[in-house]
Amino acid sequence: MKVGIVGAGQLGRMLALAGYPLGLEFLCLDPARDAPAGQVAPLLEGAFTDRRLLRQLARRCQVVTFDWENVSVASLRTMQHAHGARICPPVAALATGQDRVAEKRLFARLGIPTTRWRAVESRAQLERALQLIGLPGVLKTRRLGYDGKGQAVIGTRAQAAHAWERLGGVPLLYEERVPFDCEVSIIGARSVHGELAIYPLCGNVHAQGILRLTRAPYGPPQWRTRAAGYLKRVLEHFRYAGILTIEFFVRRGRLIANEIAPRVHNSGHWTIEGAATSQFENHLRAILGLPLGDTRALGHSAMINLIGEIPARARLLAVPGLHLHDYGKQSRPGRKVGHVTLVEPTAARRDAYALRLLEELAGEVAIP
Amino acid sequence: MKVGIVGAGQLGRMLALAGYPLGLEFLCLDPARDAPAGQVAPLLEGAFTDRRLLRQLARRCQVVTFDWENVSVASLRTMQHAHGARICPPVAALATGQDRVAEKRLFARLGIPTTRWRAVESRAQLERALQLIGLPGVLKTRRLGYDGKGQAVIGTRAQAAHAWERLGGVPLLYEERVPFDCEVSIIGARSVHGELAIYPLCGNVHAQGILRLTRAPYGPPQWRTRAAGYLKRVLEHFRYAGILTIEFFVRRGRLIANEIAPRVHNSGHWTIEGAATSQFENHLRAILGLPLGDTRALGHSAMINLIGEIPARARLLAVPGLHLHDYGKQSRPGRKVGHVTLVEPTAARRDAYALRLLEELAGEVAIP
Repeated sequence: MKVGIVGAGQLGRMLALAGYPLGLEFLCLDPARDAPAGQVAPLLEGAFTDRRLLRQLARRCQVVTFDWENVSVASLRTMQHAHGARICPPVAALATGQDRVAEKRLFARLGIPTTRWRAVESRAQLERALQLIGLPGVLKTRRLGYDGKGQAVIGTRAQAAHAWERLGGVPLLYEERVPFDCEVSIIGARSVHGELAIYPLCGNVHAQGILRLTRAPYGPPQWRTRAAGYLKRVLEHFRYAGILTIEFFVRRGRLIANEIAPRVHNSGHWTIEGAATSQFENHLRAILGLPLGDTRALGHSAMINLIGEIPARARLLAVPGLHLHDYGKQSRPGRKVGHVTLVEPTAARRDAYALRLLEELAGEVAIP
Repeated sequence: MKVGIVGAGQLGRMLALAGYPLGLEFLCLDPARDAPAGQVAPLLEGAFTDRRLLRQLARRCQVVTFDWENVSVASLRTMQHAHGARICPPVAALATGQDRVAEKRLFARLGIPTTRWRAVESRAQLERALQLIGLPGVLKTRRLGYDGKGQAVIGTRAQAAHAWERLGGVPLLYEERVPFDCEVSIIGARSVHGELAIYPLCGNVHAQGILRLTRAPYGPPQWRTRAAGYLKRVLEHFRYAGILTIEFFVRRGRLIANEIAPRVHNSGHWTIEGAATSQFENHLRAILGLPLGDTRALGHSAMINLIGEIPARARLLAVPGLHLHDYGKQSRPGRKVGHVTLVEPTAARRDAYALRLLEELAGEVAIP
C-alpha cells in the first residue's frame, strides 16, 4: 500500500516515519531535493503543479495526501479528475483552509463563534471595515498566510495606511484583534468510514507568529467538549477523511475560532510520545479506512519548537525524558527545524520542566 | 552524521526509524534488495563480505554497526584495520556471541552462572559429554545458531545418535537441558563514554525456538538486580558501546545465563512504546557518544511476534491500544514478519489482553 504525499516537509517526514511500522510505503512530491520527507522516503523532485509528476504520483499511489496547506487546489483537482487519484483529506476542505473568507463563512454556517471580520479589496473597503470593527485589528491576506506571514496588526490609523501599502493589491480580510487569555487547538480524525477520534485540547503559545510551545491536555473539560463539538461539525460538513485542526482564541472562557488546518498540525506533535496513537498514525489510518487509534494522553506533554537551528544534540539529549525530532533541515533564522517533547506525570512538573527548557533554548517566551 | 549498518533486517529498519528523529542518516549493506531496512534507508546491495562495499560503508559513515549476529567477524576486522572504520559494538563481543564455547568461557570468567557444558568435536567427545552431563541435554552447533536453528534436544541414547548424524561434522557443544521455570532477558546500553543504562527485566516465552511473547517489567526486583549485575560485568569486560542482551533461564529463583546477543534484541522491541527511550535510540546514542536516554518502563508491556504473515491490518488495528510493527517482509512459514505491542496500566490487564491476543493470533503458546 503506497501513500503519495504532495509536499515533503517535516509533516510528510513524520507521516512516513509513522507509516513504516504499519507496513506502508510512501512517495513524495516536492521541489526541494533535500526536503525533510525526501530524506526518509522516495521523492519526485519538481513543482507542485508539474502535471507529469502529479500523474505519476496518482498512478503509483493508492491514496494521495498533502503536508502543506498552500498546495495548488487546481493541481489536486486535475489529479483527481484527469488521473483518477483518491485524495484525502477532501480538496474542498483544503480550498476552504486556503481562503480566510471561505473559512469565516464556514464558521458562520456551522454556528462556530469567530472574530468579527470584513473582506477588504480596496482602500475604501478597508476604511469601512475599520469603521465597523474598530481598532485594534489585524489585516491579513486572504490566501498564502502561515506562521504569521501576510498579516499586520493595526493599532492606529497610521498603521492601517502602512499595512495597506504593504499588503494591498491582493484580496485581504480585516478582523478584530481578540485580546485573548490563551490560544488552544483541537485536533481530530475522521476516517473514510465516518469513525471519529479526537485528541485532548492543546494549549498553544506563539511568539512572532510562530508556535513555540504546546501543552496537552490543556484547559477545563468544558473547553475540550465545546471544541470537539465544533470540530465534529467541520469534519461532518466535509465528509472529511484524515486529521483536521481548529485553532481558537480563548477570551473569558469563550472559544473563538481563528482558523482551520486540513492536515496534521504542529500543535499535535506531542502526540508522537504523549498520546496512545500519534496524529500522524491516525491520519494514515483515517485516509486508508483502518480503525482509528486511541487518542488518550499518556501523561502531561509539552512540545517546544526548535527555531532557526538545532542546539547541540549532546546538550538536548542530556535533558531527562526529552524526545528530539530533528527535521533534517538547513539552519535558517525563523525556520522550524525541529521540536522536542517532554511527557511528565503531572501538569505542574511538565510546566516547570518546559519553562526551564524554554529559558535554556531561547528565553523570551512567556507562558500564560 | 551517517551510521552504517551491516545487515538490513528488521533490527536495522527499527534502528533507522529511531535515528531519523535524532537527525541521523543511515546506509545499510545487505545482499537482499528488498531487505526491511533497505525500504527505509539507502542500501548497498551485496554480500556481507564484499570488500568494495565494506570500504564504501567505512568511507561514507562516521560509525558502523551491525544488525545481525552472524555478520562476518573477519570482514568487520578488515573494515576496521584496512579502511579505518569505527565499529560499535566491539567486534570482540560479536566474535564471542558467535561462538557458544567462547560465550560459556566468558560466563565462567566473569562469574556468571551458566549451564554445565562440554565442547564436542567427535563422536567420542559426545559420549564423554553425555556421561559427564547426563540426559536430557541439548546438542548445539558452536556457530551460526539462531531462533532454535542448529540444535537438537536429546532425551535418549537413540536421539543422541540421531542428533550426531544431523549436526556432526562442525564443532558442537553439549549442555544440560535446564528444566526452567521461565526465561528472562536483560538489555542495557553502555556508551562510548562508559555511561550505563539498563532496562527493566523482560520475561520471554519461546515456541519452536522462536520468541513469541515478551512481557516487561517482569519478575521480582532481585532478579533484575542480579541480571543487571551480570550485564554490567559483560559490558565492562568488552569496554562495550551499544546495546547488549543476556538471556537467562530461571530455575527455582536462580538465573542461569543462556547466551549473549551483542545488539538490539527481539525481547526489547516493547521499549519502542513501553519505555521512555527505546533500545534502538539508546543503541544509537551509545555508539555516537550521546547521553543515554531514560530506560524507565511507561507501563506494563507485552510484545507478541507475528510469525509467518501479518494478519489483516484492519483486524489488528481494531485492538485498543495495539501498536503494529510490520517489517515489510514477504510472508513465509516460521519467519518473523512483524510484532505488536500493548502497554497497559497494570500487569494483570496486560496479561489478560496479551493472552486473548495470542489466542486470536495463533493459539498454541502457553503463558507461564
